[in-house]
Amino acid sequence: LFDLEKIAASSTMHGNVAIPLIRELTRMVAESSPGADAYVHWGATSQDIVDSGLVLQLRDVLDLTRNSLANLSGVLAGIVREHASTVMAGRTWLQHATPTTFGLKIAGALDALLRHEERLAEMTPRVLVLQFGGAAGTLASLGEGGEDVASALAEQLKLQLPDVPWHSQRDRLVEVGGFYAGLTSTIGKLVSDFALLMQTEIAELAEPHGKERGGSSTMPHKRNPVLTAAILSEAVRVPGLHSTLLTAAMVQQHERGLTGWQTEWATLPELCVTAHGVLEAAGTLAAQITVDTEAIGANLGRTRGFLLAESVSMELARVLGRAEAHALVQRVLQAAEARSVDLATALRADAEVAGYLSGPDIDRLMDPGNYLGSTAAMVRRVLQRYDAREHLGGR
Amino acid sequence: LFDLEKIAASSTMHGNVAIPLIRELTRMVAESSPGADAYVHWGATSQDIVDSGLVLQLRDVLDLTRNSLANLSGVLAGIVREHASTVMAGRTWLQHATPTTFGLKIAGALDALLRHEERLAEMTPRVLVLQFGGAAGTLASLGEGGEDVASALAEQLKLQLPDVPWHSQRDRLVEVGGFYAGLTSTIGKLVSDFALLMQTEIAELAEPHGKERGGSSTMPHKRNPVLTAAILSEAVRVPGLHSTLLTAAMVQQHERGLTGWQTEWATLPELCVTAHGVLEAAGTLAAQITVDTEAIGANLGRTRGFLLAESVSMELARVLGRAEAHALVQRVLQAAEARSVDLATALRADAEVAGYLSGPDIDRLMDPGNYLGSTAAMVRRVLQRYDAREHLGGR
Amino acid sequence: LFDLEKIAASSTMHGNVAIPLIRELTRMVAESSPGADAYVHWGATSQDIVDSGLVLQLRDVLDLTRNSLANLSGVLAGIVREHASTVMAGRTWLQHATPTTFGLKIAGALDALLRHEERLAEMTPRVLVLQFGGAAGTLASLGEGGEDVASALAEQLKLQLPDVPWHSQRDRLVEVGGFYAGLTSTIGKLVSDFALLMQTEIAELAEPHGKERGGSSTMPHKRNPVLTAAILSEAVRVPGLHSTLLTAAMVQQHERGLTGWQTEWATLPELCVTAHGVLEAAGTLAAQITVDTEAIGANLGRTRGFLLAESVSMELARVLGRAEAHALVQRVLQAAEARSVDLATALRADAEVAGYLSGPDIDRLMDPGNYLGSTAAMVRRVLQRYDAREHLGGR
Amino acid sequence: LFDLEKIAASSTMHGNVAIPLIRELTRMVAESSPGADAYVHWGATSQDIVDSGLVLQLRDVLDLTRNSLANLSGVLAGIVREHASTVMAGRTWLQHATPTTFGLKIAGALDALLRHEERLAEMTPRVLVLQFGGAAGTLASLGEGGEDVASALAEQLKLQLPDVPWHSQRDRLVEVGGFYAGLTSTIGKLVSDFALLMQTEIAELAEPHGKERGGSSTMPHKRNPVLTAAILSEAVRVPGLHSTLLTAAMVQQHERGLTGWQTEWATLPELCVTAHGVLEAAGTLAAQITVDTEAIGANLGRTRGFLLAESVSMELARVLGRAEAHALVQRVLQAAEARSVDLATALRADAEVAGYLSGPDIDRLMDPGNYLGSTAAMVRRVLQRYDAREHLGGR
Repeated sequence: LFDLEKIAASSTMHGNVAIPLIRELTRMVAESSPGADAYVHWGATSQDIVDSGLVLQLRDVLDLTRNSLANLSGVLAGIVREHASTVMAGRTWLQHATPTTFGLKIAGALDALLRHEERLAEMTPRVLVLQFGGAAGTLASLGEGGEDVASALAEQLKLQLPDVPWHSQRDRLVEVGGFYAGLTSTIGKLVSDFALLMQTEIAELAEPHGKERGGSSTMPHKRNPVLTAAILSEAVRVPGLHSTLLTAAMVQQHERGLTGWQTEWATLPELCVTAHGVLEAAGTLAAQITVDTEAIGANLGRTRGFLLAESVSMELARVLGRAEAHALVQRVLQAAEARSVDLATALRADAEVAGYLSGPDIDRLMDPGNYLGSTAAMVRRVLQRYDAREHLGGR
Repeated sequence: LFDLEKIAASSTMHGNVAIPLIRELTRMVAESSPGADAYVHWGATSQDIVDSGLVLQLRDVLDLTRNSLANLSGVLAGIVREHASTVMAGRTWLQHATPTTFGLKIAGALDALLRHEERLAEMTPRVLVLQFGGAAGTLASLGEGGEDVASALAEQLKLQLPDVPWHSQRDRLVEVGGFYAGLTSTIGKLVSDFALLMQTEIAELAEPHGKERGGSSTMPHKRNPVLTAAILSEAVRVPGLHSTLLTAAMVQQHERGLTGWQTEWATLPELCVTAHGVLEAAGTLAAQITVDTEAIGANLGRTRGFLLAESVSMELARVLGRAEAHALVQRVLQAAEARSVDLATALRADAEVAGYLSGPDIDRLMDPGNYLGSTAAMVRRVLQRYDAREHLGGR
Repeated sequence: LFDLEKIAASSTMHGNVAIPLIRELTRMVAESSPGADAYVHWGATSQDIVDSGLVLQLRDVLDLTRNSLANLSGVLAGIVREHASTVMAGRTWLQHATPTTFGLKIAGALDALLRHEERLAEMTPRVLVLQFGGAAGTLASLGEGGEDVASALAEQLKLQLPDVPWHSQRDRLVEVGGFYAGLTSTIGKLVSDFALLMQTEIAELAEPHGKERGGSSTMPHKRNPVLTAAILSEAVRVPGLHSTLLTAAMVQQHERGLTGWQTEWATLPELCVTAHGVLEAAGTLAAQITVDTEAIGANLGRTRGFLLAESVSMELARVLGRAEAHALVQRVLQAAEARSVDLATALRADAEVAGYLSGPDIDRLMDPGNYLGSTAAMVRRVLQRYDAREHLGGR
Repeated sequence: LFDLEKIAASSTMHGNVAIPLIRELTRMVAESSPGADAYVHWGATSQDIVDSGLVLQLRDVLDLTRNSLANLSGVLAGIVREHASTVMAGRTWLQHATPTTFGLKIAGALDALLRHEERLAEMTPRVLVLQFGGAAGTLASLGEGGEDVASALAEQLKLQLPDVPWHSQRDRLVEVGGFYAGLTSTIGKLVSDFALLMQTEIAELAEPHGKERGGSSTMPHKRNPVLTAAILSEAVRVPGLHSTLLTAAMVQQHERGLTGWQTEWATLPELCVTAHGVLEAAGTLAAQITVDTEAIGANLGRTRGFLLAESVSMELARVLGRAEAHALVQRVLQAAEARSVDLATALRADAEVAGYLSGPDIDRLMDPGNYLGSTAAMVRRVLQRYDAREHLGGR
């Protein structure tokens, strides 16, 4: 309906886009309904128009995000189910620790995403509210009729009517930014782990490569994880944008501020679009990612069984106590290291150990699949929560 | 019970405070219950200890914050009631706009604080959860007994049991940081408005001054708003600390990270303490602040009635339409400015206006108290919500 | 020369814009110089292309900024000269303190801008360097010829040749971001003071208003300082963008990173353009701003002479010592406040004061223009530095 | 000399630490030199005291940093020399790319540190300036004597005398924060690469482990890189602190601000101490780090020669042109991958390749040490710059 470039050009003079828009609208109404044009914008101020428009856009983006979040959760739930028993090196401090499963690893991310779904559900009704207060937020120019007009407008736009205008109270918008910053950080953690597992020396995961995708301009062998890189590079932009909202847009002076409001115009849409893009791309990546279970198994053996040192130590602790058992196993590990043998061999060769553990005992303790503790129960609980929420129409 | 300096010194070597603490605890248990020392820390990893300790501290600080937030809301509700009819210049773009009331101004802040109370209530159960997962988050060293021990421990500490350990999923902590960043920003807006209203040329509000408080080291007449300054200067530190959590602490690698966790140690406690201090101080300031209704009234007259231009314009719009009325009033304003008279005088002197408005009409339109629109209804709604929540034991 | 949309679309697959660009270029070279196409991109990697292109753009923006910075400094130097003797209330803690001049106020900003000019001059040669290292930064594919090709390319592009490629060492770019963040913060302080001085109750400065500029959509009397608002609202976006560079783009892994580089693409150009726009707009605003010396004089009298309390106190201190004089003046101030008279009157009425100060003494001490200390010397020094730099061709 | 706790307690009332300090000092001077106490603090304001004290502390910390930076550069220069020829997999996008040397990798960091040394040298004289302006920055209370007293004080404190006071122009302090943020980011990149190279599956570097250092509370085999973790976890705190300076401390109102100054008190010292600690610890880590050249060699072979694909491709390009050669090598790589053989074998088996390359050609091309291009020259240039600066007393 509108000549957007003309409105944009004119907005520089007026300080916002509403004034030229209203002028155009008034002209159009005058043409179609002579007389009605006298009532265009009655009661409202520019910020009522711009803010309510923003809320309508937020309603759309939050809808999209709810769906994409459900999609990512669904893809991850699938991975959790498929790899609930895929034993993998658990890594702490970037070092092999004790075994875990790929399913449990992803269940941790799913668990966090289910919390983000909760936060989104709680936040949405707080955010989707009308802005309509007039010049100083009192609806003065509508006299006695302010309440009725506000209600009718809220109903028309299918937005909630807030108790007071929020021209200079922007906590709702910061909550939106904070939600997306938290969500993209969770995705950043997930995909950052993917990236680490894609390293040449680890290679447990890979991004699929098509004819063109991920090639190098100069190295013929290169398969760059381009989608992984794109997600990680965009996710990290969200906190800086959110920081701008917090430091610059929350303190808007008096009834309507001199600054801050305009800061939102460039910041919040970019934040939402970037974060939602990261979410969508994460869904695509998770659905495409290939899992090399052979490499996972091979890497489990990299430490010559050392990552099961705790397994042996805790078994011995039943007899020796935790501290003494810890010390004994450390001694055996040093022997294994000195002689460049694996832990099982060193255990079998140790006289003191022989007093407590038989050969079959050692074999059992050295099987990573036997040292998973509550892994299955944990995975089950997360999946149950996922399924329950599905059942409730969460998706 | 513990020699904290010794533990602190030793923690450098070990990379965290838990290892030397556990050593001391084990020694103490060995003395008091020989044999039981073998079971100290069984199943746990250092991070289980440090994180669960953090959650216990968070429980305390969130409790304190709930009370202080209720206190600030209560003080503000009192101001809203007292000044529901204190007519004040509404200010937009740092310029006088149309009248409002001091009560409505504060009601905006109260409205935001009630939303922060909601957010706190929603967040609390998500955050107050046990951390207990062992080396790689599988509780492997407890074999079949992991679930039972975890449940018993959660019950003992009166914390919820999460579905999976959250060693490297830190969204709960970022939510805490985000809550406080939002809350302090709302307080920052409130107190920033106070500061603007305390300026020498405006002087509608003042911070009380005791014998010593707020004096200058060199200027005998000076009454510096020191508490206002302290609140504003501290509030702005919270977003930077929250930004550190978002950018540095959310991406912790694999099962337990190499970095990020330690970043939280210095950041999250400082964030909570700073933000809570800001909240408490805001409660004190709001309770002490003095309101100069005479100055408020005097300032209302500063624009020679220009801030009621809209009042006249909207009255004329009923006859002339919005655009034509706007133009007519602008012409009268220019005349008033050229002749340095007030708007009422210029309106009375204008022939065209005389066709629409009588002298008494102009008097009525020039009374700021007659141009408050829905102010009373808005204030009433916010206070009703405040009272309802009080009734529900919100405080 | 290029079909940018086609290249953009293709860049998603490849992870950067260089690969499709090179393909197009190769095709074009093959057409115009058959055989030469075999040598297109020889030795280079995609990042060499994108980074060197970025540096060429930075050269342009830094040039523009040098000019705009000189322009703003020039405008401010003009204000300093014009208002070197315009006595104005000095304000601390947002309260009247002691007199200053508008010239000295602006000289403080000019002084800071001259430092920013220094920083820009120091930074520029560090930043304007070629990127050319090939796949892993070794120029391996050029064999023995790497140095010669690199030198020739640097000469061609008129860029300095760095000692090593800087594919994953991005301190130069962060320095650019930091420069602009500092510069916009200085401008933010300047224009924030302007905004405070434009408040309805102070009104010492004003933004010019044209027929359309700064009007309100609903209030006929409104003159919103729209350029002031635009500058302040944009300036505050720069720190968040700079924070993204610091937290996300400085740690690029190994020889060329998986992430961070792409983060720069969206962040650094936006940062430069936003900051440069703020600088230009500040030059425009400073050149247009109107100074109401009458209002400045009237505001000086707002405290009934209290802002000269120090003047009296320091005069008395010559006889009584600083502490006793401070106490005496505070007593007189209380009397003045209690009786609602000005400080001069209260001083004349005080018996103890009469022992030290005559009526003419009091008159002299109560003239703000007599209590400016080193103001003139300070202003002179800053202008001398400005002029010296002009002489050296700084502009 | 002072009872710090008493001063601290009293500072809450006064809004800063200077007022109670001056009171104590005045009392002490009165005792030791009766009469002189009347002149204590004459001419100064609280901020003069606090800011000049800060600058004296900055002088100390910048001195320490200059030394620690020279120390780190020296340690890195040693590594560069020692490992100039240690051939290592060059990694881009976290994937093996083409060979580089460990020396060149570290030379990149050294090159950046030499730039940080330049920045520090340029910044220092700008920052080490006296603050002395009195109540509103005019030195009014010193009458005609302001300039002389200021000069004498600057000489006494061995600080430069600025052209104007900088009470509310804080660009110098933000420059300090920015310097440290850049420096710690460079260190963060260096140590982040160390951490990646310490991963269990890569293990090219290791942090030394003493009897206690880096042990786990539960896993006997664990050797956690605790110093690496500490550096990385602290380095990432600096940008958030710097962001607080930029967003909250740069805009201080009018002659001396209501806020912002106090924000610096908690932020800038923490920033400097944290960043300097990171620098010192990086010097310690770099001096201690162990390099496993055997692992480096083994990892070079992980891709079965694929990381030399470019070497072959560029050799063939001399005959076939870049594009055709790239395509041929990609075909051979696919064959190698399909048959699970190394690249050399696949090249020898390819009929088309045989037309261009002999067996010895292939052997030469498959030696990573033959594909280093300008590596040696680059390393030489950086070391020459390092040595030249040493010669000039840079250290």
